[in-house]
Amino acid sequence: MTTYQTLRVRPTDPGVLTVAIDAPPMNLIGPELVRDLVTLLGELESGDDVRVVVLETADRDFFVPHVDLTKIAEYTAEAAKAGGSDDASLGMLLHRFSTLPVVLIGKLRGRARGAGSELLLASDMRFAAQENAIIGQPEIGFGALPGAGGMQHLARLLGRGRAMEAILGGDDFTAEEAERYGWVNRALPDAELDEFVARLARRIASFPPEAVRVVKETLNDLTLPPAESIRADARTFRRLAATESLKDRSAVLFADGLQTRGVLELELGDRIGSLGS
Amino acid sequence: MTTYQTLRVRPTDPGVLTVAIDAPPMNLIGPELVRDLVTLLGELESGDDVRVVVLETADRDFFVPHVDLTKIAEYTAEAAKAGGSDDASLGMLLHRFSTLPVVLIGKLRGRARGAGSELLLASDMRFAAQENAIIGQPEIGFGALPGAGGMQHLARLLGRGRAMEAILGGDDFTAEEAERYGWVNRALPDAELDEFVARLARRIASFPPEAVRVVKETLNDLTLPPAESIRADARTFRRLAATESLKDRSAVLFADGLQTRGVLELELGDRIGSLGS
Amino acid sequence: MTTYQTLRVRPTDPGVLTVAIDAPPMNLIGPELVRDLVTLLGELESGDDVRVVVLETADRDFFVPHVDLTKIAEYTAEAAKAGGSDDASLGMLLHRFSTLPVVLIGKLRGRARGAGSELLLASDMRFAAQENAIIGQPEIGFGALPGAGGMQHLARLLGRGRAMEAILGGDDFTAEEAERYGWVNRALPDAELDEFVARLARRIASFPPEAVRVVKETLNDLTLPPAESIRADARTFRRLAATESLKDRSAVLFADGLQTRGVLELELGDRIGSLGS
Repeated sequence: MTTYQTLRVRPTDPGVLTVAIDAPPMNLIGPELVRDLVTLLGELESGDDVRVVVLETADRDFFVPHVDLTKIAEYTAEAAKAGGSDDASLGMLLHRFSTLPVVLIGKLRGRARGAGSELLLASDMRFAAQENAIIGQPEIGFGALPGAGGMQHLARLLGRGRAMEAILGGDDFTAEEAERYGWVNRALPDAELDEFVARLARRIASFPPEAVRVVKETLNDLTLPPAESIRADARTFRRLAATESLKDRSAVLFADGLQTRGVLELELGDRIGSLGS
Repeated sequence: MTTYQTLRVRPTDPGVLTVAIDAPPMNLIGPELVRDLVTLLGELESGDDVRVVVLETADRDFFVPHVDLTKIAEYTAEAAKAGGSDDASLGMLLHRFSTLPVVLIGKLRGRARGAGSELLLASDMRFAAQENAIIGQPEIGFGALPGAGGMQHLARLLGRGRAMEAILGGDDFTAEEAERYGWVNRALPDAELDEFVARLARRIASFPPEAVRVVKETLNDLTLPPAESIRADARTFRRLAATESLKDRSAVLFADGLQTRGVLELELGDRIGSLGS
Repeated sequence: MTTYQTLRVRPTDPGVLTVAIDAPPMNLIGPELVRDLVTLLGELESGDDVRVVVLETADRDFFVPHVDLTKIAEYTAEAAKAGGSDDASLGMLLHRFSTLPVVLIGKLRGRARGAGSELLLASDMRFAAQENAIIGQPEIGFGALPGAGGMQHLARLLGRGRAMEAILGGDDFTAEEAERYGWVNRALPDAELDEFVARLARRIASFPPEAVRVVKETLNDLTLPPAESIRADARTFRRLAATESLKDRSAVLFADGLQTRGVLELELGDRIGSLGS
């Protein structure tokens, strides 16, 4: 049995694996979580019992708030261990999840911002709780951009006008707003979300595996952003992340509670709009 | 006057032809219906009085439930008579309707599943009755995939996440859900559907024909799936349809009432999820 | 200070310029308005203080009803002064607004039809007042097509079925309908529209300019229609505009009040459907 430090992994139905992100204190994406994602990817690539993975959070307030900004080099080094490219990045790791023959369903409660949103976008489909889900790409507030696939996925899913608003505005979207824009498949009442996703996962796991594999592959050919675009965005992210803007603006936000449980992180989408230019 | 066996064809307004599918007992796509579609295509290609075709059903429960699974070879042979390709398929026949200079409006009441959905997707636009329209692509439940254009159209209209859900989940969508996902243009109250579509058809038929022709052609250049992709999906469908999965799962469903009017066909989207893996 | 004849231009927040179209009697796009747009484009290209432009109307009934059909040659000549192409057109002028490093937000009250809709589509995002916004592309009713980018933008934003309906039907869309189709980002209550847009503009203007520039550029690479397609549509428009259809149908509409404030212009979407074929 593989051991994970930040993921709770359990079979929930025949062919269905449920993976809960459980990286206290608040599910930041750091080296440990990336290491576990690399391990999970390897397990899913080599095994053939799992047909559907449901990805959820163990923390009701935070799905994934964003990456740990103090450990970009460390988690990128972990992501590189997934191999497959001499230009490794978190975005390429997520891209490899998208190309798995396994079907990945994201289930959103709490906040998914930045790479948290990108983890959901790399999933094959995603569903959100009406009462508490929040999704956003606040990178612009730090002087950066979504560097792990978000630019590519949102441009395709939302179209030019709404992708501009989401990424240039950097604001929080409620589940209902995210559904209207196509960021998530559906917003569902929190009380119905688990059963809706579990039923869908059971169905897909029950269908002939060869057909499921071929459908996902064909739809990926038609709709998945190309790896080269993911790589280009990762390079742009690194370039922008090396500027003074990111350092300066992060410093202000860290002084105000960034990366600790509290009101700043709960309302990050709003707060990045009040830093001044 | 051309005679049709399974279509009721009548002029309803100047330049507007209304075509009702009337293939008892339940509007399955079999050789007779395909033969009539080939004839209709020929009439529309050679005539120039008809500017708009409204496609509807004479059966309140079934628009088109799916193809007749016992007659795949026969209806494919009929589709081949439309010519234009040495790799003939139902998908290529529908594709030729999409490229007609005539504007095709689909009006959905009852169930449109599988090739029924694909017939609507090949139409230039489609409208559904809120109270009773059901649309779905249940092929995955048979171990196959939408092989007559559905993969291509849904990937473009719904985007990656929702197309994955629709095709991998294989479930029924209500009119309201289909509207939210972009599968149909609009869901309208049943009592308003006829007049809404008739007004739109009359408008389009009244506009200068050259402009209508150029607009449709230009939008097709921008959005219509290429013939080669339709052909590739048809080949994949045939390959998957030749596997044991399709034979085995169809056998279970036939034993339970497939292709007869009854509860299994009414609730096919749900039922294919209960066959076990 | 640059002087404008038909635009009221004022700074409203740091880095934010609000531009109100004020071309009495009814904001038709004619040579004066195009000349002012060319001037504004030049100002925005050469300056670097302005980061966000909010585009609105000074006329509660008309954002822009359409181009002045009696002055197509004159306003096209003005558009040509923006340079950059030996095949100048209104569409290419609007396209250059889309490629500015400045972010352009459209705010819609009243009617935006034809080139008015295309001006909003060339903006990076657009928001509409629920109670009074109307948007449409009625060109088909004149025997023409949207020749200033509308074909391209709507095909990408709305998808095949809805773009066909919008452009072949030529009808008016309410704010709520336009939101559902993705024509505008959001429909908002009139009383909330100004503050929503102002807040978003302030946010974007406050973010590090280099990141804003790179995000817009990257999203443009992914989603902006290519200049060559805009040019091709402009050529098609000119060809259709030279036919008898346009002359004949315009004559009927002019006799009925076209280009004057009154019921025909208020209900143009409906009226073009009643001219007969």
